[in-house]
Amino acid sequence: MAEHAQKLRVGMVGYAFMGAAHSHAWRTAPRFFDQPLVPELTAVAGRNPGAVAEAAERLGWQSVETDWRRLIERDDIDLIDICTPGDTHREIAIAALEAGKHVLCEKPLANSVADAEAMADAARQASAHGTFAMCGFTYRRVPAIALAKRFVQEGRLGEIRHVRGQYLQDWLSDENAPLTWRLDKSKAGSGALGDIGAHVIDMAQWVTGSNIAGLSAITTTFVTERPVSGELVGLGGAGAAEGPKGPVTVDDAAAFTARFDNGAFGVFEATRFALGRKNAIRLEINGSKGSIAFDFEDMNVLQYFDSGDDAEAQGFRRIIVTEPVHPYVANWWPAGHGLGYEHGFTHQVVDLVRDLAAGVQPHPSFDDALQVQRVLDAVEASAADGSAWHPIA
Amino acid sequence: MAEHAQKLRVGMVGYAFMGAAHSHAWRTAPRFFDQPLVPELTAVAGRNPGAVAEAAERLGWQSVETDWRRLIERDDIDLIDICTPGDTHREIAIAALEAGKHVLCEKPLANSVADAEAMADAARQASAHGTFAMCGFTYRRVPAIALAKRFVQEGRLGEIRHVRGQYLQDWLSDENAPLTWRLDKSKAGSGALGDIGAHVIDMAQWVTGSNIAGLSAITTTFVTERPVSGELVGLGGAGAAEGPKGPVTVDDAAAFTARFDNGAFGVFEATRFALGRKNAIRLEINGSKGSIAFDFEDMNVLQYFDSGDDAEAQGFRRIIVTEPVHPYVANWWPAGHGLGYEHGFTHQVVDLVRDLAAGVQPHPSFDDALQVQRVLDAVEASAADGSAWHPIA
Amino acid sequence: MAEHAQKLRVGMVGYAFMGAAHSHAWRTAPRFFDQPLVPELTAVAGRNPGAVAEAAERLGWQSVETDWRRLIERDDIDLIDICTPGDTHREIAIAALEAGKHVLCEKPLANSVADAEAMADAARQASAHGTFAMCGFTYRRVPAIALAKRFVQEGRLGEIRHVRGQYLQDWLSDENAPLTWRLDKSKAGSGALGDIGAHVIDMAQWVTGSNIAGLSAITTTFVTERPVSGELVGLGGAGAAEGPKGPVTVDDAAAFTARFDNGAFGVFEATRFALGRKNAIRLEINGSKGSIAFDFEDMNVLQYFDSGDDAEAQGFRRIIVTEPVHPYVANWWPAGHGLGYEHGFTHQVVDLVRDLAAGVQPHPSFDDALQVQRVLDAVEASAADGSAWHPIA
Amino acid sequence: MAEHAQKLRVGMVGYAFMGAAHSHAWRTAPRFFDQPLVPELTAVAGRNPGAVAEAAERLGWQSVETDWRRLIERDDIDLIDICTPGDTHREIAIAALEAGKHVLCEKPLANSVADAEAMADAARQASAHGTFAMCGFTYRRVPAIALAKRFVQEGRLGEIRHVRGQYLQDWLSDENAPLTWRLDKSKAGSGALGDIGAHVIDMAQWVTGSNIAGLSAITTTFVTERPVSGELVGLGGAGAAEGPKGPVTVDDAAAFTARFDNGAFGVFEATRFALGRKNAIRLEINGSKGSIAFDFEDMNVLQYFDSGDDAEAQGFRRIIVTEPVHPYVANWWPAGHGLGYEHGFTHQVVDLVRDLAAGVQPHPSFDDALQVQRVLDAVEASAADGSAWHPIA
Repeated sequence: MAEHAQKLRVGMVGYAFMGAAHSHAWRTAPRFFDQPLVPELTAVAGRNPGAVAEAAERLGWQSVETDWRRLIERDDIDLIDICTPGDTHREIAIAALEAGKHVLCEKPLANSVADAEAMADAARQASAHGTFAMCGFTYRRVPAIALAKRFVQEGRLGEIRHVRGQYLQDWLSDENAPLTWRLDKSKAGSGALGDIGAHVIDMAQWVTGSNIAGLSAITTTFVTERPVSGELVGLGGAGAAEGPKGPVTVDDAAAFTARFDNGAFGVFEATRFALGRKNAIRLEINGSKGSIAFDFEDMNVLQYFDSGDDAEAQGFRRIIVTEPVHPYVANWWPAGHGLGYEHGFTHQVVDLVRDLAAGVQPHPSFDDALQVQRVLDAVEASAADGSAWHPIA
Repeated sequence: MAEHAQKLRVGMVGYAFMGAAHSHAWRTAPRFFDQPLVPELTAVAGRNPGAVAEAAERLGWQSVETDWRRLIERDDIDLIDICTPGDTHREIAIAALEAGKHVLCEKPLANSVADAEAMADAARQASAHGTFAMCGFTYRRVPAIALAKRFVQEGRLGEIRHVRGQYLQDWLSDENAPLTWRLDKSKAGSGALGDIGAHVIDMAQWVTGSNIAGLSAITTTFVTERPVSGELVGLGGAGAAEGPKGPVTVDDAAAFTARFDNGAFGVFEATRFALGRKNAIRLEINGSKGSIAFDFEDMNVLQYFDSGDDAEAQGFRRIIVTEPVHPYVANWWPAGHGLGYEHGFTHQVVDLVRDLAAGVQPHPSFDDALQVQRVLDAVEASAADGSAWHPIA
Repeated sequence: MAEHAQKLRVGMVGYAFMGAAHSHAWRTAPRFFDQPLVPELTAVAGRNPGAVAEAAERLGWQSVETDWRRLIERDDIDLIDICTPGDTHREIAIAALEAGKHVLCEKPLANSVADAEAMADAARQASAHGTFAMCGFTYRRVPAIALAKRFVQEGRLGEIRHVRGQYLQDWLSDENAPLTWRLDKSKAGSGALGDIGAHVIDMAQWVTGSNIAGLSAITTTFVTERPVSGELVGLGGAGAAEGPKGPVTVDDAAAFTARFDNGAFGVFEATRFALGRKNAIRLEINGSKGSIAFDFEDMNVLQYFDSGDDAEAQGFRRIIVTEPVHPYVANWWPAGHGLGYEHGFTHQVVDLVRDLAAGVQPHPSFDDALQVQRVLDAVEASAADGSAWHPIA
Repeated sequence: MAEHAQKLRVGMVGYAFMGAAHSHAWRTAPRFFDQPLVPELTAVAGRNPGAVAEAAERLGWQSVETDWRRLIERDDIDLIDICTPGDTHREIAIAALEAGKHVLCEKPLANSVADAEAMADAARQASAHGTFAMCGFTYRRVPAIALAKRFVQEGRLGEIRHVRGQYLQDWLSDENAPLTWRLDKSKAGSGALGDIGAHVIDMAQWVTGSNIAGLSAITTTFVTERPVSGELVGLGGAGAAEGPKGPVTVDDAAAFTARFDNGAFGVFEATRFALGRKNAIRLEINGSKGSIAFDFEDMNVLQYFDSGDDAEAQGFRRIIVTEPVHPYVANWWPAGHGLGYEHGFTHQVVDLVRDLAAGVQPHPSFDDALQVQRVLDAVEASAADGSAWHPIA
């Protein structure tokens, strides 16, 4: 962090869970990584003046705005970091790009393919002028996943045959868990599918370097109505189970079989009802020469099978991805000292800043994110169509 | 093994891999379990006189026949144990049942639904006269799987929501592995689907107590032609890769999404190309109150999650299923001393003999096996029909 | 099992837990392995005429004796298999060897070093005349342990630096578990130390190919008196907790630090109070080039770390020891189908019979077992001597 | 982080690995936890003016000093954070406490019992005036370890019988790894024993709530001389193996058996030669009612066995310690999103600040750390004394 390094002045929209994670990353990246641009937490925007001021203080932002449009107008902002719900992404991102600001946008890119296409168009146009957009699929920056990608690129897996992706959580398993905006299709777009399935879809496509070409899907909603949360109807939590209920309008679980462009055979599942699974993002890939397996519940580990090992000594290797030779790790702690969830966000900042300084397109681009959106769209279409096969354009 | 216990005189047809496993079970069951009938290895049948005599000596059978029809005619045989390939099951089983012999038939029950229906009809008729038929899905008798079934019956899982079944092997991953009868549709019926997928389908339906009601499937064949094996063309193994090749006419992998009668949401996959997975029969079930997970690669273990545990102390329990309170275990070794693959066959004999002595229908019945056959059939039909949803009658 | 193969006629003394395991092995070995001699279960000896007759029937022995001396006198017996408690081993084994019978003796070889020395002397003399003795440390024949030995011999581990041995059980954890002969020093010799610690000591010395040269030890007895079991005092089990108690005169747990002849640094522990550990025989060895780790609770697996792997791809390999290339496995089931506890006994028979037919000394010899006895003796001596270092002659 | 919250002004001495970890914690704690005092990174001290200025910039400190004495004299400093090697701790800590500054001192507290006693005396005196000292055994603040402590306090384990502690690393396994100050007894005090063994000793005593009362030990040095590192002799790293060598004067590994005040039976081992083990701090405790097991290589997990579970459903629970009910977790991410190594440091700041604000003694106190030092001292004394038992005063 050289004293006279150039700044990258950031304006963030939204300051909830994702805003906290992003703020931590902007603050922390330059403390551990030498970067060509030093991020500055210039301003944060939110509608509620008191709340946004409190958030700025807590998260370390230098100033506040109560309208994201004002943030985009400011001359002292180089990048807009969008941490709001999906239905707002299109408007903010396009406005920012048109104003010449770089954009980091949380996933899912949008709530529809049409919105995602408009955003990807805008990003493509902006990139011609050196303004870049990136979507926040941060699991790409978990060291074990980055290592899996490297193994594929090094040819360690050979020709890829099987892709097995799961994202299993259990926080909706309780039937009396309250109805939140995440269970309302008009706001969230979809349920487990877009919220968590999107992550494992992006991860699978990125690691394999191949897109999903078509799929057949089913979805289900196990609990069709839930207590309207106390806040909304003026009841304490205790009364939730007996109080008024409202409809769940999104999927509780989604699954699909798929074929990839490279011929690989895929099986995917996302659910928030897998009792006992807390954040099990799992990816297994079997190739003609090797296999990898990952589970976020053991996030510092990559399992790797090499069919070139001596026959008597073959077995999945439990690679503890905490050595200096592993992606991102050398800048942190000594060998063996594991990283956590938020490091993915810090690495995202590191890669983004490096690419912006070099004037190259950071990944995942909005085009990459649009492809994920098309997969989500095909899942819903196939599920509504008797599971018929839906190719992806 | 009381000295004057009544005998159950067994005649076995076939003596390859399955014949060896069955023989071991017939010999071993009465040594560890007190049984109302003591099995006697009365005769084994096979076409090649020299080979069947050698097998009888090695496996412990008292006499031989070179025609299975002769075995069925013998008065000193109470039960016919069918260990031949699937295309012969129908004829042998029906003849045996009509001759008043009990039948134990290896899985899959048959190579087509029509054959399986005929067999199930014959079994239903025979049972009216106290003659019973059973199909050899032995994984039901792995203690951990029997314990999973007990947990479901005790209500520990609550309402079942998710069923996740996999059977992953890798022995065809090598493109130069030879073409065998298992890769010929006319003999094997199907590939990974019927050979191994059938096991996990039966396991899932039995443990949950619910049948698959419909499904959407895809299948694939990664390696479409393989070296004709040396034996067939008079070449040594070394020349296989360069020698003549023949077509693979079965699936290398199959996957399907499913719904169960009880509303559960299912995802299944079977493959012989999952490099590094040797015999990974996996079953995970998530209910409203608890979950179980099993992997045959750690066969003496059942994972169990109980949402009724104190919140701070919840976690999947690694139950080592080797205590006297666990199914079948008390008759073997002290606590903690694991069992192996063949114990499932011994337990199958134990249960079968007990039920025959009591005059009750042993499970899985031919009707149970017919249901599996219908699922296999629907998988192939859906895969051939653009993955469209296929209900199961 | 050729029809005219020569026989190895076996006479067994004792027929409890170990007798059942040995009988199974004698019956089963020739069914799966081609052997130069075919074992014949000729006679079993025990003092209680009714019980021994019942055991012969159940376990498959052709005749009975009520005095082991008579067994040794019989002309139609080639080998005496000793499955009685340790205090009887010396007399039976020496008598048998002097009568020209081969001997297989259960572990521990004896209850004292003096007894073990006398037995080893007798065995050495007998071997000069082609009569051989072997001690039953069967864990050497678990495929994963035999593979670990092979890895050491192949030089995969380099120079051995660390040996970490544990044998953890929990069946005495309940303070009201009854007082049995295993808790009586006069009969059992010692507690956890000799009963289970002996196994991991033998395993460590055999796998490393190096003996323990000296040690420092502690032992403890957590529960100093226990209910006299109902059988002994005419009470039912329910009354045990309130009934009379008797003293526990053996160790409940033992631990020692050690140095091996080759300079390796050892840490060992044996206990029957490790709540939740059912049969955790664990061995970890770290060398200058690689490491192995084993846990009997996952008995078909050997963990192996190879420091020669690419730096980014190093990790403990979970070798599923069920492939044809692995020790003993080719004669059993297809790849991936795990073995159980009793297979070690069958493999012991296989190796013993092969060596007897070849006229070579089977292992572990009585000298090997005497070395284990010396280690047990040094543990007790050091523990009684303020943990002072005790070299082993 | 209320705007007008009182400050806790921190001065840090040293800025290497530990300094970076502490800086991160001081910066991060108030962003995630509401605290009664807000830490201010007021000044950092180091002897090299250029290096300390660079570190201040990178780590976020407002000013620098080139003499730690000057730091202690400053009026605008409330707490001295000591991140220098052990031989400097005594002088700095005592001076700081006498100047009325709170102290946070890295472990090990000192390089000798005498130094540690002097420091503990000073801390006891200071505490009478409301000035407090704490030692940095941060593993106490790993959520899984804090949960283990809670389980013991809740009585879930019952009477504690077994304590099994290991700290296994492998970074010295390579014989050509260079000679550093950590291998020089005059600077480091001891080798694996004090560097890493100290952590597991503190962890075991804290979690069990009982001190080690006596022990018997061995130590070893596998590689007795190593290449003097290039920096020291003006050679590049490549020439290291052929260059001059110097003596290793500390232990490479240490092991000891122990008894605790509460009667528990302990076995401990620390090494930097366990090839394949990267940072395996392992603690297993077996009590009369339950057990826990921890391995830092899977740091977000606590294994827990409850003997009160139904007999058929008992097994070690894999508790993923990432739920809001778990220690420290509610302030971080949603359920299931794991933490990393540095979070222990942040939690240490959180607890320290809370206790200072409340005027109560934070733990571990210097007395706690002195007890660890006495254990380390006894290990070296016993190892030098033929492993004779050494009680700890």
